[in-house]
Amino acid sequence: MRITIIGSGNVATHLSAAFKNAGHRIAQVYSRSMHNAALLAYHVGAEAIDNPEDINADTDIFILAIKDDAIPEFLQHLSSFDKLVVHTSGAVDMQEILKLTDKAGVFYPLQTFSKTKEVNFWDVPLCIEGADETVTKTLEELARSISNNVYRVNSAQRKVLHLAAVFACNFTNHLYGIGEQLLAGRNMDFNMLRPLIAETADKIKEHSPADVQTGPAVRNDEFTMQAHLKMLEGKPGLQELYTLLSQDIIKNHNKPNGDK
Amino acid sequence: MRITIIGSGNVATHLSAAFKNAGHRIAQVYSRSMHNAALLAYHVGAEAIDNPEDINADTDIFILAIKDDAIPEFLQHLSSFDKLVVHTSGAVDMQEILKLTDKAGVFYPLQTFSKTKEVNFWDVPLCIEGADETVTKTLEELARSISNNVYRVNSAQRKVLHLAAVFACNFTNHLYGIGEQLLAGRNMDFNMLRPLIAETADKIKEHSPADVQTGPAVRNDEFTMQAHLKMLEGKPGLQELYTLLSQDIIKNHNKPNGDK
Repeated sequence: MRITIIGSGNVATHLSAAFKNAGHRIAQVYSRSMHNAALLAYHVGAEAIDNPEDINADTDIFILAIKDDAIPEFLQHLSSFDKLVVHTSGAVDMQEILKLTDKAGVFYPLQTFSKTKEVNFWDVPLCIEGADETVTKTLEELARSISNNVYRVNSAQRKVLHLAAVFACNFTNHLYGIGEQLLAGRNMDFNMLRPLIAETADKIKEHSPADVQTGPAVRNDEFTMQAHLKMLEGKPGLQELYTLLSQDIIKNHNKPNGDK
Repeated sequence: MRITIIGSGNVATHLSAAFKNAGHRIAQVYSRSMHNAALLAYHVGAEAIDNPEDINADTDIFILAIKDDAIPEFLQHLSSFDKLVVHTSGAVDMQEILKLTDKAGVFYPLQTFSKTKEVNFWDVPLCIEGADETVTKTLEELARSISNNVYRVNSAQRKVLHLAAVFACNFTNHLYGIGEQLLAGRNMDFNMLRPLIAETADKIKEHSPADVQTGPAVRNDEFTMQAHLKMLEGKPGLQELYTLLSQDIIKNHNKPNGDK
């Protein structure tokens, strides 16, 4: 397919590279910054533009990989083309694009991308949604050309997916950070925790998290939990967090029916 | 060294195997259950016992890998031997063992073990503490024979390490579980989240968590956070958790001095 990429951030960069590797043609890369547009366009053999008026019709699909709140405004620049338009956001409804065109869809990669870190795109879950079956089929085919994990997901499901990712990834990373801070307070290096963090993530590759829960809360070990809360004296935010998470674990693992 | 293992759980199992592989001799394995003692003893070529009175003096070190609250009581069975005694707990003070003998220490592996999952012991951080420099040196040498990550850690530090592990691992696993539950509520499979979880853990192998924090909170994206809280209506525990974690992220990344 001929693909126009709107945006030059992490999602735009990784998506473009995957499309290029799969044999698609990246027609244009748009960014407000010509520097960024040129950098990405160079890597994928596309034309770089920084003026929306330079967008041309010589493409099959416009992929918007820009900030959520920039999406509605940008769509006006695509109103003269009768082409497929998708966004790549976890939180924005497909309705936003339907306001512009019936050929609307969503192409949401459920992964966290850094510009400096390679990702094997074949493993990235791609969540697609199309305004009708024709659009959905086209997006599905495009998605399957770059990933082995393609899912049909409607807008309501996608928002839940995004919320679940905030818990399982954004909040998780913050807990890593709390661990690092606690260690630093006693002159210990975060390296000491890294193997345990890696193993914790590794375990759930083949298990359900509930089946491999460990720690004082799931054992209902009051003594240790009280000792931990005492160690957190002077850090009311962390005490509250410790209590809330422990209570939630206890609640989840001591269901009224006696199930563990 | 000649090593006697008290306990037959996950820590006892993985430690014994690592010692055996390193050329040490496991003299005896004690467990309240002869079945469990025999199973482990068979694998490491040791004698299995289930009666504390059968513990003999033909050893250099007793390693207690039993539940925290079982430690003080068990120590009495070792009172007639003048040998090195260590426990393997993150939360128990070395003082507990000093009540029995001056040849006291701690040998704490900071890892989560499952019986069914292999762990490369060379990567496991071993936190050691000895009652005096002679004991510490002996433990250090023993630790280095099975791991490349050996740390001298005092009892106060070890307790902080244990607390940090609760945040970065036990609580993290619970957040994975919340993600799974949210997906299940919309008929989506946890497999969709697994690659993102793996990448989130992978990122901090080379970065500080604070440097790679992503998500609505660190962007101070009020609109998305409000939308998420609305989606969590009817789940007050999760709403509270979402708010608390988001506030803590915002606080950490918007320091008064303007640092990010």
